[in-house]
Amino acid sequence: MSSEPENPSSSTATPPEESGEKISKKAAKKEAAKLEKLRRRQEKEEEASRKTASLSIEEESFSRSYGDVTLNELKSTEDPKAGKWREAVEGKEWTDVRELVEAMEGTEVLIRGRVHTYRHVSSKKGFLIVRQKGSKVQCVVAESKENHVSVDMVKFVRQMNSESFVDVIGYVVLPKDPVTGTTQQVEIQVRKVYCVNSALQMLPLYVEDAARSEADIQAGKPGANQDTRLNFRVIDLRTPANQGIFSIQSWIQIGWRECLLRKGFIEIHSPKLLAGSSEGGSAVFRLDYKGQPACLAQSPQLHKQMAICADFERVFEVGAVYRAEDSFTHRHLCEFIGLDVEMAIHKHYSEIMDLVGELFPFIFNKINENCQKELEAIRKQYPFQPLKFLPKTLKLTFAEGIQMLKEAGVQADPLGDLNTETERKLGELVREKYDTEFYILHRYPSAVRPFYTMPCADDPNYSNSFDVFIRGEEIISGAQRVHDPELLTEQAKRFGIDVETIKTYIDSFRYGAPPHGGFGVGLERVVMLFCGLNNIRKTSLFSRDPLRLAP
Amino acid sequence: MSSEPENPSSSTATPPEESGEKISKKAAKKEAAKLEKLRRRQEKEEEASRKTASLSIEEESFSRSYGDVTLNELKSTEDPKAGKWREAVEGKEWTDVRELVEAMEGTEVLIRGRVHTYRHVSSKKGFLIVRQKGSKVQCVVAESKENHVSVDMVKFVRQMNSESFVDVIGYVVLPKDPVTGTTQQVEIQVRKVYCVNSALQMLPLYVEDAARSEADIQAGKPGANQDTRLNFRVIDLRTPANQGIFSIQSWIQIGWRECLLRKGFIEIHSPKLLAGSSEGGSAVFRLDYKGQPACLAQSPQLHKQMAICADFERVFEVGAVYRAEDSFTHRHLCEFIGLDVEMAIHKHYSEIMDLVGELFPFIFNKINENCQKELEAIRKQYPFQPLKFLPKTLKLTFAEGIQMLKEAGVQADPLGDLNTETERKLGELVREKYDTEFYILHRYPSAVRPFYTMPCADDPNYSNSFDVFIRGEEIISGAQRVHDPELLTEQAKRFGIDVETIKTYIDSFRYGAPPHGGFGVGLERVVMLFCGLNNIRKTSLFSRDPLRLAP
Repeated sequence: MSSEPENPSSSTATPPEESGEKISKKAAKKEAAKLEKLRRRQEKEEEASRKTASLSIEEESFSRSYGDVTLNELKSTEDPKAGKWREAVEGKEWTDVRELVEAMEGTEVLIRGRVHTYRHVSSKKGFLIVRQKGSKVQCVVAESKENHVSVDMVKFVRQMNSESFVDVIGYVVLPKDPVTGTTQQVEIQVRKVYCVNSALQMLPLYVEDAARSEADIQAGKPGANQDTRLNFRVIDLRTPANQGIFSIQSWIQIGWRECLLRKGFIEIHSPKLLAGSSEGGSAVFRLDYKGQPACLAQSPQLHKQMAICADFERVFEVGAVYRAEDSFTHRHLCEFIGLDVEMAIHKHYSEIMDLVGELFPFIFNKINENCQKELEAIRKQYPFQPLKFLPKTLKLTFAEGIQMLKEAGVQADPLGDLNTETERKLGELVREKYDTEFYILHRYPSAVRPFYTMPCADDPNYSNSFDVFIRGEEIISGAQRVHDPELLTEQAKRFGIDVETIKTYIDSFRYGAPPHGGFGVGLERVVMLFCGLNNIRKTSLFSRDPLRLAP
Repeated sequence: MSSEPENPSSSTATPPEESGEKISKKAAKKEAAKLEKLRRRQEKEEEASRKTASLSIEEESFSRSYGDVTLNELKSTEDPKAGKWREAVEGKEWTDVRELVEAMEGTEVLIRGRVHTYRHVSSKKGFLIVRQKGSKVQCVVAESKENHVSVDMVKFVRQMNSESFVDVIGYVVLPKDPVTGTTQQVEIQVRKVYCVNSALQMLPLYVEDAARSEADIQAGKPGANQDTRLNFRVIDLRTPANQGIFSIQSWIQIGWRECLLRKGFIEIHSPKLLAGSSEGGSAVFRLDYKGQPACLAQSPQLHKQMAICADFERVFEVGAVYRAEDSFTHRHLCEFIGLDVEMAIHKHYSEIMDLVGELFPFIFNKINENCQKELEAIRKQYPFQPLKFLPKTLKLTFAEGIQMLKEAGVQADPLGDLNTETERKLGELVREKYDTEFYILHRYPSAVRPFYTMPCADDPNYSNSFDVFIRGEEIISGAQRVHDPELLTEQAKRFGIDVETIKTYIDSFRYGAPPHGGFGVGLERVVMLFCGLNNIRKTSLFSRDPLRLAP
């Protein structure tokens, strides 16, 4: 489009008339032959031109029914005569592919989508599947005088590269037999088709391959490995499953906010650039901030608590969290979205657990109510069972969990943490006994919780803290916090933290602080576990792990 | 509370009986006097103890009506007999201060808030103003046998430090005269009062001072300078104006999401850790990412466009944006929250402007409908006129803007950018002529827009771009983007960008890309300009500028 030759005149075929050279007989003869050739060519061109003119009513109209849209037409020109596409779509509205239904039979529609596949029938007919987001519709391109569809137009459609963007104008028709391989059960009888933007002929990844289920791949069909997918994420994300995953991610946030806002929370944004080293620990990204050493926040912990000291009472945040950990597991990322809550409490940390126990079933129900198509699309590629959860969330104490494990013959340290395997085992036991895959385990040993966790009143070896599990994996961590600056200092020291580096944080409790607590959860993990996916890279739009910083 | 002496026995007054020293006469006499003193003290204590016992029915009950809540009681103990506070609040629900209204006259309530001020009347009576978030109520503490309020209790209340958290149990009464200086028009006749958490006696900043209007400060009352406010932001944020500002910030996001979700957008999160240097330019924060050079995203520009190439069609993002600029103005921060939109368009970049023109009035109306109290609180400290905006947003071309300026005698380069002063002037002219302080200026000169901006079809010196102004300040920048990889490469080179560093971005348009565009706006600026505030640091929870990285 912008690749016009730099010096078009250099390719001219006309002789250099302006040259004053003397001409030999042989040369003159040669020249005459050349001119004769030129004359004949001109005659031919004129004839062709006359033919076009005489056929203009029909042929001209046929040729205007298809073609590449020029970039100039796409530069938001106001001129409806800027080109044939611009003229064809003038005054028309686009219909979404997913909205194409039987009731529209006979109406003319204009749709935009990608060339998903083309099935060649003959030089006069073919089937173009147009995909828009996850939805697909079959468009029938067949030579037809009545519809102004020429063989050349059928050829044009056949030759379009897959993944190109196309505008199709045609009539909605009902197919004789049900169409397989599309989401829409109507067809489009194509009248006009324009290539809005052409994709490369050879793509590094094909949506068809990226969308294959494990079963299909086992059966010998081509798939795509994770690195190829992530390298060409803009193609990978086009699969119906991925479209579904990120729609569900958006819905989780809708549910999250709806429930919390209704309960008097406000949404805050805490800074991610921090002086010092966040909550301590070495797994932070460090940087130079105008000459000052700084790091990226490992969580909004300190600032969300400071927001409570600042009288906001009930706050939540949805924001990036940075972990420089060298974790190569299926559930760790170096950058992810943290969903955080912090709230003043009146009497008991159960106030926080009650919120969790109400909030997440609310979110789960929200997804189940609004995302059936998306869940179906995901399930088709990655089969999973719907998450089992109770309307009233189950709460068990850590000691009760240890006891259940013990009875099942699994030993676990009553003052230590559970490892991934034990957590999974406990998840199984809980599902068997209580028929839920979502539950809260609380009163964790103090030793395995952060320094700002409030110890239990009756036994400082345990703390007013909890974890929440989905399908046997820990997903939420929460607790009542220490709001007393002296106890907080004491506990920080005991954990080996240089209290000078968190002075502002500790000081904020000296100006009056209410009892409070909260919790945090990774958005990507919620999506992953709700949909029973096996890798968090599937639920991060552009994932960041120790080896991946692009795209 | 946790400050028990480390070695309590060292302070004992009893003689060292176990020492085998020989005792002199003088020493013996001294020792006898000591013992006599001790005996007398013990007698006194026993007498006091007997007195307490005999008065237990009355005095004991009186003493249980007030006091400090122990940390143990606040450790979420299940034991209702853990202390007098725990016992007093057992089975009771807390009422929010803002919910205290005349209709509740005579009912007993339990409230929690901060000690805002105490007005001493006599040793037997005083007025305690309790503040919860922005709301205040007057609590009358007066000696009363009937209410079990002793003089000691009045003294206890008087001696509480300001900003301490307090639980008050009492009856709602209607004051004879209207109460000035509180938001609630009822009083609480105090029966019980407990200090939940004590603030330091001397605070580095007082809410009263932080809440003063410019007019009050001019009149000689103490204020607080900006650095003190920002250094002690957890106190500063408690002012009614600040509580209002961040409530409005939360509401802006509610309006933003409600409108966009309704229009088929989904919320995405793009990575902030990028390889290379974002969109180019030197004002980036650089860091080491596991041995790879990386930087913090200056905007979600590249990834939000990639999301469009990935078929999401309509996306928005609310996320942190990092600018390492040395800007010390009232409107620049090094970290702020970007509200971003990117959308596929069908024909014209006006589709994007139409969205802006609908979205922001929707948000403004949302705030006006839901935040009258908050706006009032802000206006009280920082007077401002309500923003003027039209139901149908005004659109002017850049050329029309230049013409208006010219007619007003202001020269501006028709192919250059407007400076802050000219923008402000144009804002005045537009307000005078069209009665709006919110408008769109479009078709900017190409030279002053980023490399990825689509040039106009009719004149490449201009581009399919726009800025949006509130009260004469630029707040939103948007445009149609170049979706053609060749033109994009060409424009990037012309802008001096190393195309190798943005290869993934450019390549994503080779796999098929729809025409698209979008815009970005800083959340803090929307709040600032809607409320006519003079500094963006007022609308950032914990601001980050070239000199400030804490708290």
